[in-house]
Amino acid sequence: MNIPLTLTRTDVEAAQVRIHTGIRRTPVLEIHGDELGVPARVALKLELLQHTGSFKARGALNSVLTADPLPAGVAAVSGGNHGAAVAWAAAHVGIAADVFVPSLATPEKIDRVRGYGGTAHVVDGVVADAFKVGMAWAEEHGVALIHPYEQAGTICGQGTLGLELADQVPDADVVVVGCGGGGLYSGLAIALDPTVQPVEPERCANLHAALAAGRPVPVEVGGVAADSLGPAEVGRTAFEIARAAGVQVPLVSDDEILAARAWLWQRCRLLAEPGACVALAGLMTGRVDVHPGDTVVVVVSGGNNPAVP
Amino acid sequence: MNIPLTLTRTDVEAAQVRIHTGIRRTPVLEIHGDELGVPARVALKLELLQHTGSFKARGALNSVLTADPLPAGVAAVSGGNHGAAVAWAAAHVGIAADVFVPSLATPEKIDRVRGYGGTAHVVDGVVADAFKVGMAWAEEHGVALIHPYEQAGTICGQGTLGLELADQVPDADVVVVGCGGGGLYSGLAIALDPTVQPVEPERCANLHAALAAGRPVPVEVGGVAADSLGPAEVGRTAFEIARAAGVQVPLVSDDEILAARAWLWQRCRLLAEPGACVALAGLMTGRVDVHPGDTVVVVVSGGNNPAVP
Repeated sequence: MNIPLTLTRTDVEAAQVRIHTGIRRTPVLEIHGDELGVPARVALKLELLQHTGSFKARGALNSVLTADPLPAGVAAVSGGNHGAAVAWAAAHVGIAADVFVPSLATPEKIDRVRGYGGTAHVVDGVVADAFKVGMAWAEEHGVALIHPYEQAGTICGQGTLGLELADQVPDADVVVVGCGGGGLYSGLAIALDPTVQPVEPERCANLHAALAAGRPVPVEVGGVAADSLGPAEVGRTAFEIARAAGVQVPLVSDDEILAARAWLWQRCRLLAEPGACVALAGLMTGRVDVHPGDTVVVVVSGGNNPAVP
Repeated sequence: MNIPLTLTRTDVEAAQVRIHTGIRRTPVLEIHGDELGVPARVALKLELLQHTGSFKARGALNSVLTADPLPAGVAAVSGGNHGAAVAWAAAHVGIAADVFVPSLATPEKIDRVRGYGGTAHVVDGVVADAFKVGMAWAEEHGVALIHPYEQAGTICGQGTLGLELADQVPDADVVVVGCGGGGLYSGLAIALDPTVQPVEPERCANLHAALAAGRPVPVEVGGVAADSLGPAEVGRTAFEIARAAGVQVPLVSDDEILAARAWLWQRCRLLAEPGACVALAGLMTGRVDVHPGDTVVVVVSGGNNPAVP
């Protein structure tokens, strides 16, 4: 799909009007930079507290509500957070959701789709296999497939997180965010004036590779964050935005991601999923550039760990 | 110990001046009451995100800083959150902490005292045994023992949570809080104008029993919340405040506490300890009186579950 790069903050503001009564305005936790070894004020945006446990609820609800008239149902392909988010968004407005889940997804992920009222279709294989089946099904049934990142409704929905930040941390100098397909990164960059700094896992470095190649290219993905940040190819929108902004993308290792995750648990009692700890890992390793006295926002984007208590 | 019932909001404001640069201002998460089956706006005060994973850091730091001149060290007796909080508070200001821990406490709890820089003295037996040894040690060494609830510094420190709420949810009609020894309940009642509603586990109902008896009386305690809400006898301050206010204390069962805890995890990705879910259980069971259109604050007071990730 192609997103018009003419998306602006006004489009994100329209999304906010559309979805703000349905989503949660997630709070911010301020941390002394000393605790993290950085000479800055740090604000953690606790998006893991969002409906369905990740920011994906924003984009899904906005995509559902953008359709006029409201359809009888929507479809999605996902082995993770996007599937649960689309199921939740559809239930929220009272329509059906058919979610195509690869058989390699964990039973918990499949249960979550059903738990939010969606119909889970388990497809043998990986996400690409589920995508083929889901596309064909959607076409046959005349139902819109909601893309997890490369779709205007999704990007503008994720951008509403940025509008909340503009209100909650108006003096932010930089907003640090993990990047997978790039929907959240794109939405934030469109919504916010301060620098938005993407960070990637070494083993899911599709934006990093795209910037080096001059275009989105498929990369091999793996590691602890692959379930949420693991599309083989970054979205074109995120690539174009990053290229235009001239950003460098710091990379963090699996061990560094897990160290950030352990810090969040031990020092904040927040249980984030690994992909949601990539931005914090970028800060803790010193690989994200911070100037003394800066105010840094770190997005903690999701908490869908395997079942815990 | 005897606390003057002349403690006022001014004393809590003084505590806030003393400790506000050391503690975290914990955020609030707004929830649609529909999600919980109550006809109200609900704000969760996320005090589990506090330093040391519970509100106890507030009272401990205030008690440490109230001493003038600053002592060379402090002592505490605790099998749980208070011990870690005193160790943290002492380390924060650069003095020693000696914490007397009953051998029946879990290894995790003992490790947490040490992890925050305290010296853990493991005493054979239960809290009462550790108390005897700790008292004798403190007297011998001329070191002040910080009481977990029945001490002015502790109560006023916990009350700072209420001052934050007055700012964060100025239109609150009622603030619901679990009650154990009663330090947090007392501090909130002193700091806040709106109704403060204590809730207790059926199996740790020392305030409920005290109100029935006309004075604090020892009760048998047990169940899932006993590690944090399990003093046999409620503090006199909490008893006097509750009696003067004429409050009823709703009771919740272990199953109801665990259902509230499961909801917090499944719907908010918050992993609270059982004692911190008692207030929410009171709301979810309908046992806390709520009027349509009310704004209800529920304190989620701690997250020190056994080691998780």
